[in-house]
Amino acid sequence: MSDHATTVRRFWESTEARDWPALTALLSPDLVYETEQTRERVRGPGLLRLFQEFPGDWHVHLRRVVAGGDAASSIVDATLDGEPMVALTFFAFDATGLVTRIEEWWPEPYEPPPGRAHLTERF
Amino acid sequence: MSDHATTVRRFWESTEARDWPALTALLSPDLVYETEQTRERVRGPGLLRLFQEFPGDWHVHLRRVVAGGDAASSIVDATLDGEPMVALTFFAFDATGLVTRIEEWWPEPYEPPPGRAHLTERF
Repeated sequence: MSDHATTVRRFWESTEARDWPALTALLSPDLVYETEQTRERVRGPGLLRLFQEFPGDWHVHLRRVVAGGDAASSIVDATLDGEPMVALTFFAFDATGLVTRIEEWWPEPYEPPPGRAHLTERF
Repeated sequence: MSDHATTVRRFWESTEARDWPALTALLSPDLVYETEQTRERVRGPGLLRLFQEFPGDWHVHLRRVVAGGDAASSIVDATLDGEPMVALTFFAFDATGLVTRIEEWWPEPYEPPPGRAHLTERF
């Protein structure tokens, strides 16, 4: 497992554990976190406050990580007050291995478009 | 750039070019493609038919690829009849480098949740 994969694993484990010092140790002071769906941007330690202040009973569990070069991505299974959600997150790292950039998406279920049932199974 | 990154780049370039032989050459006959949001699964050459039959004027442009180990992921900027969309795609490969598994999400914009405007900028 690459160092970046380890960092992503620790990112989600320390977030789930609400271990803010452990999470902070992974992050560049210049961190930029963006959620393109809402066009929101959070800088540096603002991310910790976002997590700390996020309402409800939330949990995050890393399903998969892909890491290579100066980047990584993850699929996270989350729950918010028991409701399942999925996060897709892309990470970039500085030369020392700290996380400098996070781009995250929270896709929601939707109905299959018409006209392709002959090509698909449902699961 | 790893071989898997090259494969992902070719995947999107041949899809955009509607170069079905070039796309087919990248895919395992055992390919499984899943969109968890709609709970749809497509097997093997069904993916080509899905692309070929997809209605409207659609385009795909690779924004970023992350590749490492036996996996890769990509961010794609797409348009459908001129409307911008984003696809997040996770790829797995067999020992010969062919794509065996694709999991894809198409997240949509949503309004920022209340109560965090003091932590965020908008872009």
